[in-house]
Amino acid sequence: MRMYDIILKKKYNKEPLSDAEIQFFIDGFTDGTIPDYQASALLMAICCNGMIERETFKLTEAMLNSGDVIDLSSIKGIKVDKHSTGGVADSTSLALAPILACLGLMVPKMSGRGLGFSGGTVDKLESIPNFNTSLTEERFAEVVNQCGCAIIGQTSDVAPADKKIYGLRDVTGTVDCMPLIASSIMSKKLASGADMILLDVKFGSGAFMKTEEDAITLATLMVKIGENAGKRVGALITSMQQPLGNRAGNSLEVLNIIELLKGVKTRLYQEVVEVAVKLLLLSRVETSEHQAELAIEKVIESGEAFERFVSMVELQGGDTSYILNSEKFEIGELFEIYATESGYISKIDTEQLGNACVDLGGGRLQKTDIIDNAVGIEMTCSLGDLVKKGDVIVKIFHNQRGLKQATSLIQNAFTYSENAPAPYKMASAYVDINGVKKY
Amino acid sequence: MRMYDIILKKKYNKEPLSDAEIQFFIDGFTDGTIPDYQASALLMAICCNGMIERETFKLTEAMLNSGDVIDLSSIKGIKVDKHSTGGVADSTSLALAPILACLGLMVPKMSGRGLGFSGGTVDKLESIPNFNTSLTEERFAEVVNQCGCAIIGQTSDVAPADKKIYGLRDVTGTVDCMPLIASSIMSKKLASGADMILLDVKFGSGAFMKTEEDAITLATLMVKIGENAGKRVGALITSMQQPLGNRAGNSLEVLNIIELLKGVKTRLYQEVVEVAVKLLLLSRVETSEHQAELAIEKVIESGEAFERFVSMVELQGGDTSYILNSEKFEIGELFEIYATESGYISKIDTEQLGNACVDLGGGRLQKTDIIDNAVGIEMTCSLGDLVKKGDVIVKIFHNQRGLKQATSLIQNAFTYSENAPAPYKMASAYVDINGVKKY
Repeated sequence: MRMYDIILKKKYNKEPLSDAEIQFFIDGFTDGTIPDYQASALLMAICCNGMIERETFKLTEAMLNSGDVIDLSSIKGIKVDKHSTGGVADSTSLALAPILACLGLMVPKMSGRGLGFSGGTVDKLESIPNFNTSLTEERFAEVVNQCGCAIIGQTSDVAPADKKIYGLRDVTGTVDCMPLIASSIMSKKLASGADMILLDVKFGSGAFMKTEEDAITLATLMVKIGENAGKRVGALITSMQQPLGNRAGNSLEVLNIIELLKGVKTRLYQEVVEVAVKLLLLSRVETSEHQAELAIEKVIESGEAFERFVSMVELQGGDTSYILNSEKFEIGELFEIYATESGYISKIDTEQLGNACVDLGGGRLQKTDIIDNAVGIEMTCSLGDLVKKGDVIVKIFHNQRGLKQATSLIQNAFTYSENAPAPYKMASAYVDINGVKKY
Repeated sequence: MRMYDIILKKKYNKEPLSDAEIQFFIDGFTDGTIPDYQASALLMAICCNGMIERETFKLTEAMLNSGDVIDLSSIKGIKVDKHSTGGVADSTSLALAPILACLGLMVPKMSGRGLGFSGGTVDKLESIPNFNTSLTEERFAEVVNQCGCAIIGQTSDVAPADKKIYGLRDVTGTVDCMPLIASSIMSKKLASGADMILLDVKFGSGAFMKTEEDAITLATLMVKIGENAGKRVGALITSMQQPLGNRAGNSLEVLNIIELLKGVKTRLYQEVVEVAVKLLLLSRVETSEHQAELAIEKVIESGEAFERFVSMVELQGGDTSYILNSEKFEIGELFEIYATESGYISKIDTEQLGNACVDLGGGRLQKTDIIDNAVGIEMTCSLGDLVKKGDVIVKIFHNQRGLKQATSLIQNAFTYSENAPAPYKMASAYVDINGVKKY
């Protein structure tokens, strides 16, 4: 078999690539016998001519098996996982893990770090002093068996083929391609060993998918890949018309989660409940949305979910005194941003708010950048709110760095209108094996 | 400007690449600042999405200007050039140069070497002892000014961008693409400095273009590129249903040319006259095909063309005693191939006959292989001939090497039929600025 012939076959696209051809490409590119320039030619041919589902399934499987597949067999019970395609102020996982653990599910969660305007769960947790996100696989399973949840960083040996291919796609204009995006995400998710996976596919400003339609297409493909691999998979389609939570920045988002788990119904609360409901239904712990919602509210209101979060922090070595007394978190200096006009907030450029956080030092431009956990922003308004010129709309918490750029980005991120905009729906659709359900 | 954005633009193909973008790619890839893996992604996107004529013109120009453009201003008169897209037993140029020189045209010809089943003009000339195909540019012009023609190898600095791109296309499945093929050929041809160019675009077995239609499409694009660059260009469309001449192999083809210039009307004679006529009309030395043919026949019959060939060989350092007494050429041992059936020869696999020559040692599989000038084949039949089982159809001249494989290839290259096949046309169409003329 020759890589040259595989490229030609995809270029002419008269018939799909065979399983053996896809395996040959993944094996050869991972071990370095297929050079970058041949891989990039094939990736571009895939971008231009597409892949049928069977090819995408095989590509995912080959990338998944290129590295370690996490063995979670020592964890008893139904193991669930959640994956977000990235977002601003999306700390859903931090609250979701203890809530689901209280309801009998096991949440052995492997999360990523932030890059660009998009934050990372692992970074947020590390703003809790001594919190260890690099547990061994053994200790990871122990913590989950003890308290029902644990959140660690992705081990480096998960899907190395995907890592190498993504690196090449990133510099060859071959990122934007449904089969390649779907197989990249799913090869990593399937390697994490969960039984049920809830995907959160974002669309709009600051999301990789620009339209709801594209998000649904991607979600549908990922659900099929997951089901083909024997997992139960659902995908929530979430709008990024505004940041998910009202606070962005590592320590600020932990503060948000502490409040949420204490029952404060912030904007993020809705999204956490939505995701938790879907996972409870997917894993058949609950059979009706309403019952699932009630169960979730109960474990929050009883303080059980908060306690579970404290246990997880403790078992992962974190200083729980910060959780129990959240004033211990060091937060930057306050700087307020005022509404420049009176009117309804009709549009928010979420990506620019994320970029403002990066400018303040609260995010990374390069993988090696160090994050200032104390900085970030807090929105005191939401999409559709009626504000008066001079009202505080955003609070910046800064350590002098990047204040000017952040201020300008934030001011330009808001659009005002005379009339109230259409009501805002955060979760706009749900996709599973039965198809698409629009809200 | 970033290569990444250029790749994306061609990937989405919503608008053509600008001149500046094409120039940026060629400059950056030639000087090594653009890596292979980005170039191959762009080339694949071009294969999938095509290029409009303006992009192809600019690509050709940028590749042409990436290296030396031969300055032929010291040669007086109308300078003509001819380019064949490769073939078996195509020694047209060897006869064409002295014939056109006798008729007042200047033929400063730069030719290539053979690779695979396709022979090279430079290799053929080098079978004449001491013939020098590496003249300096100055000496090259001197020889042309003295005898009207000279044939040398391509200097290595012609269109280095094309050389590098072709090397990459060859290993990334991006060879087969009209704009890339046309710009590659024309960037080299336009760098050779002639005023008029006659292209000979082959199609069929053993040709890069498999159908007449594709050959016409390619020819049309190349004619437009040439005219856009201010040259007068025509393109003959030639079938490769059988080898152009009846002999293939370096010394054997020189022998063929000697006979042809002495007036023997071999199969190649027709093709030489056809090409010469087109160049005489293109350069307006003659205005009617008939007059042009008569003029050509006259310089052959008078011995003038042969004398001119001897002069060229002499001026390029070759041992003319071989031309004057062609028995001096060392030829391999004879082995005859017989018709395995009685019937009409209805089909000849030209490519396999070329490969048989390579097996005998008369061609190259790799650029560094050394050719045995003494070996080759002589066809004693033509397409459409009625033969009897046991008739000699091919004479092999060998030096022991590869005889078995060559014999088998040759025997399998012939198909016989009970009924006479349709009459065979070598030249099937002609393309110039006025359009396509089918014969």
